[in-house]
Amino acid sequence: MTREDALQALEAYRVSIDALDLRLLELLNQRTRVVEEIGRVKRTAKLPIYEPRREDQVFENITAHNGGPLTPEAVKRIFERIIDEMRTIQRIRMEAGIEPSQDGDS
Amino acid sequence: MTREDALQALEAYRVSIDALDLRLLELLNQRTRVVEEIGRVKRTAKLPIYEPRREDQVFENITAHNGGPLTPEAVKRIFERIIDEMRTIQRIRMEAGIEPSQDGDS
Repeated sequence: MTREDALQALEAYRVSIDALDLRLLELLNQRTRVVEEIGRVKRTAKLPIYEPRREDQVFENITAHNGGPLTPEAVKRIFERIIDEMRTIQRIRMEAGIEPSQDGDS
Repeated sequence: MTREDALQALEAYRVSIDALDLRLLELLNQRTRVVEEIGRVKRTAKLPIYEPRREDQVFENITAHNGGPLTPEAVKRIFERIIDEMRTIQRIRMEAGIEPSQDGDS
């Protein structure tokens, strides 16, 4: 493989990475929107916001379906970050009281 | 909304989350495979493995296309974790002198 060939191959791979990243980004934002809906339902129904057991299910789901090459540990760390960022957004929304108030007596 | 309605809605949202997570997982593994190809080409052509400028481009690509609700900072932190995990895999492969298997070689 000449240096020229290598640079050309790298360029093609980078185009793939950029396209994959935009699809990842879209799915991450879609997931965030669902998490926001979940938060809204829980607040309306006065259900507990944090459910550690559900988080375990999320990890079980992904590790059971992981065919690699990412290791289970790598996958877990990536999803921990994803879940953590979505939890942060939920907390910011709650603290800012962005949701329409349910007890309108204030 | 009754408690029953809420629980039912939550269940439906969780099904969506689980499906989104499997799509995310597949894209993450696909991205890892491309990163492995890039590593292979770079090693063959003796090109530098780490290119900080390319990493900047990756972040520029995603932040330029982020429509939210994830904030640019949240997106950046998630992708930092993704890139970091893939860099770790590359390093392990290099140190072990193991090329990612292609055609079921043992």
